[in-house]
This record gives sequence, C-alpha cells and structure tokens, in this order.
Amino acid sequence: MRIWKTGAIAAAMLPLAIAQALAAGKDVSSAEVQYQAGSSPLANVEMYQDINPKAPPLTKAEFDKARQIYFERCAGCHGVLRKGATGKPLTPDKTLAAGTDYLKVFIKYGSPAGMPNWGTSGELSDDEVDLMARYIQQTPPQPPEYGLKDMKATWKVIVPPEARPKKKMNNYNLENIFSTTLRDAGEIALIDGDTKKIISIIKTGYAVHISRMSASGRYLFVIGRDAKINMIDLWMEKPDNVAEIRVGLEARSVETSKFKGYEDKLAIAGTYWPPQYVIMNGDTLEPLKIMATRGMTVGEQEFHPEPRVASIVASHYKPEFVVNVKETGKSLMVNYSNLNEITTKEIPVSKFLHDGGLDSSKRYFMVAANQSNQVGAIDLKDGTLAGLIDVGKIPHPGRGANFTHPKYGPVWATGHLGDETIALIGTDPAKHKQYAWKMVESLKGPGGGALFVKSHPKSKNLWSDAPLNPDPKISQSIVVYDINNLAAGYKTLPIGEWSGIKDDGAKRVVQPEYNKAGDEVWFSVWSAKNKESAIVVVDDKTLKLKAVIKDPRLITPTGHFNVYNTQHDVY
Amino acid sequence: MRIWKTGAIAAAMLPLAIAQALAAGKDVSSAEVQYQAGSSPLANVEMYQDINPKAPPLTKAEFDKARQIYFERCAGCHGVLRKGATGKPLTPDKTLAAGTDYLKVFIKYGSPAGMPNWGTSGELSDDEVDLMARYIQQTPPQPPEYGLKDMKATWKVIVPPEARPKKKMNNYNLENIFSTTLRDAGEIALIDGDTKKIISIIKTGYAVHISRMSASGRYLFVIGRDAKINMIDLWMEKPDNVAEIRVGLEARSVETSKFKGYEDKLAIAGTYWPPQYVIMNGDTLEPLKIMATRGMTVGEQEFHPEPRVASIVASHYKPEFVVNVKETGKSLMVNYSNLNEITTKEIPVSKFLHDGGLDSSKRYFMVAANQSNQVGAIDLKDGTLAGLIDVGKIPHPGRGANFTHPKYGPVWATGHLGDETIALIGTDPAKHKQYAWKMVESLKGPGGGALFVKSHPKSKNLWSDAPLNPDPKISQSIVVYDINNLAAGYKTLPIGEWSGIKDDGAKRVVQPEYNKAGDEVWFSVWSAKNKESAIVVVDDKTLKLKAVIKDPRLITPTGHFNVYNTQHDVY
Repeated sequence: MRIWKTGAIAAAMLPLAIAQALAAGKDVSSAEVQYQAGSSPLANVEMYQDINPKAPPLTKAEFDKARQIYFERCAGCHGVLRKGATGKPLTPDKTLAAGTDYLKVFIKYGSPAGMPNWGTSGELSDDEVDLMARYIQQTPPQPPEYGLKDMKATWKVIVPPEARPKKKMNNYNLENIFSTTLRDAGEIALIDGDTKKIISIIKTGYAVHISRMSASGRYLFVIGRDAKINMIDLWMEKPDNVAEIRVGLEARSVETSKFKGYEDKLAIAGTYWPPQYVIMNGDTLEPLKIMATRGMTVGEQEFHPEPRVASIVASHYKPEFVVNVKETGKSLMVNYSNLNEITTKEIPVSKFLHDGGLDSSKRYFMVAANQSNQVGAIDLKDGTLAGLIDVGKIPHPGRGANFTHPKYGPVWATGHLGDETIALIGTDPAKHKQYAWKMVESLKGPGGGALFVKSHPKSKNLWSDAPLNPDPKISQSIVVYDINNLAAGYKTLPIGEWSGIKDDGAKRVVQPEYNKAGDEVWFSVWSAKNKESAIVVVDDKTLKLKAVIKDPRLITPTGHFNVYNTQHDVY
Repeated sequence: MRIWKTGAIAAAMLPLAIAQALAAGKDVSSAEVQYQAGSSPLANVEMYQDINPKAPPLTKAEFDKARQIYFERCAGCHGVLRKGATGKPLTPDKTLAAGTDYLKVFIKYGSPAGMPNWGTSGELSDDEVDLMARYIQQTPPQPPEYGLKDMKATWKVIVPPEARPKKKMNNYNLENIFSTTLRDAGEIALIDGDTKKIISIIKTGYAVHISRMSASGRYLFVIGRDAKINMIDLWMEKPDNVAEIRVGLEARSVETSKFKGYEDKLAIAGTYWPPQYVIMNGDTLEPLKIMATRGMTVGEQEFHPEPRVASIVASHYKPEFVVNVKETGKSLMVNYSNLNEITTKEIPVSKFLHDGGLDSSKRYFMVAANQSNQVGAIDLKDGTLAGLIDVGKIPHPGRGANFTHPKYGPVWATGHLGDETIALIGTDPAKHKQYAWKMVESLKGPGGGALFVKSHPKSKNLWSDAPLNPDPKISQSIVVYDINNLAAGYKTLPIGEWSGIKDDGAKRVVQPEYNKAGDEVWFSVWSAKNKESAIVVVDDKTLKLKAVIKDPRLITPTGHFNVYNTQHDVY
C-alpha cells in the first residue's frame, strides 16, 4: 500500500489512511479527512502570528511553512481556528497540556478514530511532524475577515445584462449540456450531451465544487474552493463568463432563487471562511446582503466561532434559501423577499451538516449530518424539521437518489464514506406514513468510500460509485442495482476498464450523472498518476458502454452536472 | 477642576474629562466614556495572554495589571476585543504602527475627539500610562465564551413555583413600589411609594442596571453589570429572591414577555460579553435558547466580532422581543412563539444603538443610535423601520418621555450627553403625518450631560436631569418644562439642596421617576465623597418638595423604577 509514498497523487483522491484503515477493518472516519483534504486557498494567506510564551519556539520561516501545511492538510477537519470540527480541537490549552512528544506520535502514527498517519504514510517527514507538533501549541493565527468592500473589489460584470444576447445565439441543446469541473486546471468544460463534444472550456475559480443553474436554465453558476463564483451565459454564441466575484477565502456552495416570480433574480453563496453567506443579484452577481453564521451549536448551545456553510438549497415552496451550517448543525431558512429587513428561521438539526438534496416531491430537503451518522428531513413547506434519521457511518449523498421502492414507496438513498451500505429512507408521510423518516432498508455495497448515488424518474436503476475505496477493483468500478429486484444485490460495471485508460492502480471513477432523457449515465474517470482522463457514457437500460469522451483538455474531470436535471432538481 | 485628582470618586459619575471639555467648549463625546466607565466584571477574569514579538516587552504581572485597567477604563469605548466601538480600534496592527511614544501622549493628554486625558487628570500615573501604551501593542486577550453549560451551573431556583404563595401575602400597594438600585452595595431597595419606607433590601448582582416587571406585575427582574439576574416575588410576605442566574460576564438588559397569552411566561437578557442574548423560562429563569449577535455592521457590512446587546424591549403587538445590537446597529425582532425553530427579523437601523422606549401608542420603539446622533423608530406592528431621525449630540433618552405637544401632537423626547438640547420627535403618522419621524423642536437645557427625561400621561411637566454636567449647580439640580408653555424655557429645582446632604461639590441628582398616580416625581441623590444619599420626592403639580427619604441602607442609589409604570410602559 506504499505506492503513494512518492506524493505524486493529489491528496484529495488518494486516501491511503482509509485504505489502510479499511484493510485493517478499522473505522474509516478518516475518509472524511481525505475527502476534505487538498489544497486550501487559506494556505497562502498571510496571517499575523503571535508567540505563545509557553510553547516551544518557532521561527517566522517555520511558522509560515507550518501554517501552510496546516491549512492544506489539517484545517478541513480541525477547523481554521483550530476549535475543532469533525476532528478534535487543537487550541493551545489542549495542545500544551499534551506536549510535543505526545503530539508527534499522534501526527506520525495516526489513530483508529480517524487521524491519518501523516508520518508513516510518507506525507510528512519527521522534521515536518516535529514542526507541526510545535506549531499547534502556538495560538492559531486568524485569517482576515472578508466583507462587502472586499467582495466589491473583486466583483466584475464582464458582459452587462443590456449587452447580452436577446435570444439564444447558438444551436446547442442547452438542456442536455453537461458542466464538468476540470479541477486542477481551474476551469470547467461545457460538453454537448447530444454530440458528446466539448463546446467550450471556461476559466473559473480553483477546483470548482459544484455547478448550479438559474431557474430559467439560461445561466450557469459555478463556485471554486477559493470562493470564486463565475456566471456563464449559455445563450452566447460560445457560452462564456458574463460576471464573476470572489465571496470569501474558501467555499463550497452556490445556488439560485427558484420560487415563482423570482426566477433568475437572486443567487447565494456560502463560505467556509469567513463563516457567512452572501445573497447577490442574480443578473450581475452584485453582492447585496451578507449574514454571519457564527453562533451556538445545536444541543449544547456552546458558541462556535467557525461554523462553515456547507450545502445551500433553494425552496420551490417559498422565497427562501436553506443554508446548512456545519458545526452548529443548523439549517437556516432565509427569506429573500425582503433583503433589507431580512427574516431567518433557524432549524436545529444535528452537527456536521454537509450535503443533501430534495425528495421526489421537492417538499423535503434531506441533509446529511455526516459525522453524526444522521440525515435530517427539512419540511420546506412548513419550515420545520420533519424527521431525523439514524443511518450508517458518515453518510455522503451528494444530492441523493430518489426512486419508488416496490415495498416502501418513495424513498431517498444515500451512500456512506464510512461503511459499505446504502441507506434508503422513506419520504412519503402522506401515503406511506409508516415508512416516512425511517431507514427502511440498508443495501449492501461492494465496500465503503461511496461518494455519490444516483437515479432518475425514468430509470429502474440505482447507481453508486466508490472512489475512496482502497481496493482498485472497486474504486475503478461502478455498481448498479435493479430497483425492482434489490434483493439480487448489485452488478459491477468495469467503468475504469471501459475508459481505456492504462491500468496504473491510480484510476478512480466518480459521480454518476444522467442526461436529460434519463437514458444515459455519465461518469468521470481520471488517473492522477499518468494524468489521463475520460468521460464514460453508459446506456441506462442495457448497462452497456455507449461512448467514451477523451480530450487532452479534460484535465482531472470530477463533478459533472446536466443542465436540465440541475435546473429542475431531477435526481 | 482638579478636585477629583485624589481618585476618591467613582469613575462612572465624575467625568472630569467632560468637565474640562465642556468648560473649554469642546466636543463632549467623552461623556460617553465616563458614562460607560466604571468597574467591569471582565477585569477580574483570567485570560490567556500571548506575547507579540513585535511589541515592547511586558511581564506577566504587568499584563495582569494592564488588563485590569483596560477592562475597567477602556473597554467600554474601545471594546473587549479592542476592535473599536465608540472609540477607535486598538488592535496591534494599528497600535504598533503608532508606536509607544505616540500612544503615551494620547493616553496622557487625551484628544478633542473625546479621548479622556487619563494622565493629566490624575487617573493614571506616568508609569501606568506607559504600561497601557505597551499593553495595547500586544494581542488583545480574549475572554472566555459562556454557553448553556456555564449558565446552568449558576442557575438556582431558590423558591420553586409550587412553593410560592398562592396569593399576595403582604399588605403593600405593589403597584406603587419603587425598585431602587443600590449600585455599590450589590443590592436593590424596595421602597413603598405610599409610605416612603423601605420594605426590604435584597441582594443582587453588582451595579444593577435596570429593573423590569413581569406582565402580571408580580415578579421583578433585575440585572447587574456582572450579568447576574435576580427574580423577586412581590407576593411574598417580605419580597425576596426566588430565582437567579448569571447569563454572561457583562450585561445591561433584561426584559419579560408582554404579548397576550405570554404573560409571565418568558424572560430575556442580553450581554455585552459574550455578545449574545438568552431567552429563559419566566417562572424559573431556566435558560432555554441562546443566540449569538456577532454579525455584519449596518451599511458597510463588515464583520464585527463583539456587537454588544444594549436595550431590549417587549412588543405588545406580537410575541416578539426587540433586541438592539450596538456595534452592528441592528434591531433584531425575535419571535418567541417557537423557541426551538426560532424566527428572527433583522432590521438595520444605525450604529451604536443603546437605549430607548416606546411611544405613547406603544406601537413604535424609539431607539437612540447614540454616537451616530440619530434615533430610529421601529414599527413593532409591521416589523419595519418607520423612520431614522437626526437629533443632537449623543442622544440619551433612558426610555424617553412621551407627551402631547400643543402644536405637534404626540411627541417623544430625548436629552443628550453631548449638548444641552432636548429633541422632540413627532410619533403620530396617523393624525400628525407631517411631523412624524422628524425632530420638530429642540428645547434648550441648562447644559449637556442629560441622562434622563421624564413625563407622565397625567402630567403637564417634562423633567430632565443633568448629572454629568461639570457645573455642580447644574448637576445637583433638576429642570422642568411646562409642556403647554415650552417657549418659557425651564424652571430649576434645587434637588441637591432639598436632599439635605452637605454641599461637598460631589453631589449628583439623577433619574426622575413618577409614582403610579403620576403626581409625584422621585429623584436619587448621592454624594460619592461623603457617602451620603437621599431620595427626594417632589409634588408634580406644585413643584414643591414633598418628602426626603433617608436611610443608612440607601448606599449609592441610582436608577429607580416604579412597578406600575415599568409593568405597563408608562412614560
């Protein structure tokens, strides 16, 4: 398992620790680590560093190096302010008490609870382990805040609304376009779902996390990990950026207003740092209203200084966004009908809210509280928590998958980072009351590390990937279940093989996404080792290979979003 | 003006800087300083102090002494976290740039903009000035947070509800009781308004800031500067504490639920530190819901880490509290009908919200944004900002004074700390639309430093004190206007003389408060020098002395609250 020792692989997609942990039968909450890990834009932000008189000394050069490592490797789980998130707090009161030797052992060898073995995995040298042990005994430096003035300084209207096309100027079938993140290139590719050809490559922020559509389907919004938002006009002859803004230092989520009468009017983004969200003009990205998320945790009601904004969903029932705040475990229902005197309803759910999606009726938002091993069901019509369901270890649904179960009726599915199951939750309190908000079934998958499950109203299949699984046979494959015969278990499709990319042990297949018709499923395949990639298209009915899209411009394709399905929340 | 050099006088009530500034015709925004100054409970909280490698050295002993001075003298204007409030920010990036010598001059000599001359006034020695200049170049230590667990550890139900009297067990006319703060004693005195005798002295937190009544008039709530709340049952044979809780480290406000159906059900308190508010069970003070106020400032939308909760008012129109947040300048309308999934409407007003009161209809909350020289009118029925009125320098209304102006109809009055005027604002958009939300008249007072104005629906008088005025003739008197003949100017009543306390140049008279009948006005008089005090009662119609209440137990009486008027918001 030491093939990654050379560090040739981007951290985010090669979870050695999980590999080892899974192989040893250990708890794989460190999947969270690797899932979170990867270069953080905060690593390069100059921060003021005090000297803690009680801590071992550190030179300025050592501070800077350690701070960079901290934000790149550790902040994802331990927090920017080191107050703890899914990982434990690392504030000086605790770390000084532990002492350098204890900390070095922990950092070097990891722990069964999920701390990666940064030292013995080869990720950090012994000197670096010692450096980090000393660094975390110092006061955490605080990154700068980022308010309206900072946002406005980065806001650009590249093509003002009045200068944009009055009608669609191209012949593309916009609804079947796929927006594909080219992670390491800081770009997205727009791929024509009909012809399977690349329409354009567009410059964006770094490692675009998600794509979202405006309600009309004309505008595409993407947000990079660096909190840069790009707004793309699909009506242009060659679709390209019409506006951009940077809304913070690190982010994951963007969304647009979907309530009737507000189509294309507003956009919203949430940031990891600073912990806040901003509502913008949907036509220009002009920042209008910023709201901080620092507040009290669900249950214990202790103040958390760094509650990151995870997913955001737009309600179809009210002029509201639902902003999910990770460390406080609260879903904030934000009413955008009055942005000046703004009303917010705060729903306590469960800590570590992360991703989620609507149920098939679109009335309920199913959100994973990942390290709490729970899923919350938020009733968007009544503005209340309808249910809180215990599921498996570290649910990771993406937006989840809706289908009609032969026995249980409408269900929503999620895979798990921490075990090999797929949980099915009943979502129909009207006609299937006895199953609503319960885990009605748990499907067995090939092994843990599932990132995305997917289905489609027109499909009889439930798909799941497992890119964080240590076994290459699994991480390079996709499994598919027949919804009408779940007891038969899953079929495995060798997507990695079908991609035609050489078998170098480093290929990963991720994120099933349907086309508009619901008869094709698209997968991203890439190998970080030999830097080859492909998009594999499978026929949803026959389960046979339909097409392989290869293009040297497709650098590290990760998430892809079909315009129609994203616009209408079809999944 | 050097009589205070000996430091024998409590800082809060002897504003030498204002005296000198006023005498020199300077801006008296330093009235805010003295108004805020005084012992802070935070001064004694042990805090972790880092060493700033760029700053001049400081020993641990020096740190502790400087930190204490900082919280006692400086935090009121510069903030606990030194990010600035009414005073400028004092964070290391700024103070290091200024350097020790510059800072020493500033601290020693003050500035025309309102910084007191701590050195030349004799408040701080040269060594202490040097100490403080060095201290503020270090990183501000952060006081601890204070969450549910901390509150519960201090929460005591001294007499559980079931053990309390089922009917009133004494013969006092409860509605005419006065709750009087005995500031330095950490007590309140309950005084029988009919007999003018002390009913009981009750132990409370330090320097009780205000008293508030439950909707039924049975329970009295007081909050000390140290954030300790005491709940007193007036039905007991000898009224005394039945519950207590400490809700933070420093506070100013407490209130109870007044909407129909919620009488006596809930209480709320807001804190300066931590910046948050807590809603409690109105029967036992059990803490139920804590909400943080850290957020973006009105207008510039920059993050403020320490927005203190100033006044809180209870709406009669909806099940809502209005929580006024100082540094962000926002009034939060908090709906208490659902404490679990809680809805808040955030009204941007103007920075430096502080005190205020209802208009005569009780529909509008008039709140002073003091250092912005403005008053906001919050419509409690429609949940919106009805008006924002420019007034004089640093309005300080207390709860203000409502009366019917012969020309302008219903008006609300506020005095000012920074000039000698009383502003009258029209409050009747229904029948006097042209005057609503405008300053219709500005009365001339005897000199600045007015803390409280007062009137009563049954009275033809408007009263004002001026305890922060440097001229003892003024600070020891009270002025009164005839509402029907405002042009005639004010009459002066020598309350200080009437109190019978020796003339030592250190007497101050403060806070006119009516009795239930509206025919008596009560004043607190005290001399910090010879530690004598009295309560002077004046006949509202004849303007003649009616009674003087003296009792050795009346130690530093400051604010007093008539039960009936406080219960029903009569002012």
